[in-house]
Amino acid sequence: MKESPGVVDLLGVLAYAELSAYARMTEDAATLAPSLADRAALSELAVTEYAHFRLLRDRLAGLGADPDEAMSPFVEALDAWHAQTKPADWLQALVKTYVGDGIALDFYREAARHLNPSIADLVDEVLVDGGRSQFAVERVRAGIEADPTAAGRLALWARRLVGEALSQGQQVASARPELALLLVESAGEGQADISRLFATLTEAHGKRMAAMGI
Amino acid sequence: MKESPGVVDLLGVLAYAELSAYARMTEDAATLAPSLADRAALSELAVTEYAHFRLLRDRLAGLGADPDEAMSPFVEALDAWHAQTKPADWLQALVKTYVGDGIALDFYREAARHLNPSIADLVDEVLVDGGRSQFAVERVRAGIEADPTAAGRLALWARRLVGEALSQGQQVASARPELALLLVESAGEGQADISRLFATLTEAHGKRMAAMGI
Repeated sequence: MKESPGVVDLLGVLAYAELSAYARMTEDAATLAPSLADRAALSELAVTEYAHFRLLRDRLAGLGADPDEAMSPFVEALDAWHAQTKPADWLQALVKTYVGDGIALDFYREAARHLNPSIADLVDEVLVDGGRSQFAVERVRAGIEADPTAAGRLALWARRLVGEALSQGQQVASARPELALLLVESAGEGQADISRLFATLTEAHGKRMAAMGI
Repeated sequence: MKESPGVVDLLGVLAYAELSAYARMTEDAATLAPSLADRAALSELAVTEYAHFRLLRDRLAGLGADPDEAMSPFVEALDAWHAQTKPADWLQALVKTYVGDGIALDFYREAARHLNPSIADLVDEVLVDGGRSQFAVERVRAGIEADPTAAGRLALWARRLVGEALSQGQQVASARPELALLLVESAGEGQADISRLFATLTEAHGKRMAAMGI
């Protein structure tokens, strides 16, 4: 299978997504966690993101690409996403970890679907959930149980996360047509398939919301 | 060898030192690194600190201590140290990584010297330099070569790091006499040995400064 020209873009955006998620989750853990044990639990997920970054960077280098050059087109959009979605409290941080990253990961996985299997396997490996779901879901459900008014507030927050993700995603797609092409190829041909892709992503998002009881 | 009552304190302060160093180095890497490669290099050191935190926390639990309770007496002093020594630029961040952590590690190693060997070995393991020296020394030397006026500024910064470390260290020692006792026991008996300990620490600090060309 021929390497798609969007592969370096895909690994680049994913590498920077992991590197920036690691830094933000570390900061959220240090500033928002209600206990040292919670701080350690979120830091553990952050460190896993860093390990994924390392795999992606090394694969980029293995493909003969400069990892810094591959990541740099995506720094602005991903930094903007994090700046627009800075959690105000611990529950918002957990919802961001689960929902925000979740929808991004659905996109990446979709884009990687028709690639060379060794690339697709790597993307699957770095997108593994790694306990993120269980940790966030349990804590958010417990938070809502303790304070039922939190549910509405967190539902709004989750909508904002999705809105910002789509907004930044669109900008990236128009700036990097080869990356966007991976999604179209993956979805099949034409507008109907793109609609189906969005329906799939929306369904996955709905499942995550339901899991948290939001 | 009998477990000293200061052991849980020592592992607790060390665990929180690693957890907070991990968060601060991650933040410094994300906000101050001049390139993505430098950001990754400092993040790599940060993640190593987290792995050390994990070892210490697990050992505390193995000793029957609650890791959160063991760490909590030291949160304020270590957070204050980081707040007082927030680097303003990349070279300050590197000097802090090398010099600031270095002098703290000398203290911990000294305190652990006469403990049960399995504890002393663990402390040695988490205090391993892990490439920190080489990375920081090379980058700082190159920075001073590119801008010789940086040397004086960084020398002042290093003095401030040491001053803040001693100040916070004294507060911790007076609040936690059993921890302070480990240092005295390690140094031998009496004031003359404490003076010798300080001479050793000062000498190690001088070597680090010379290595960076400051």
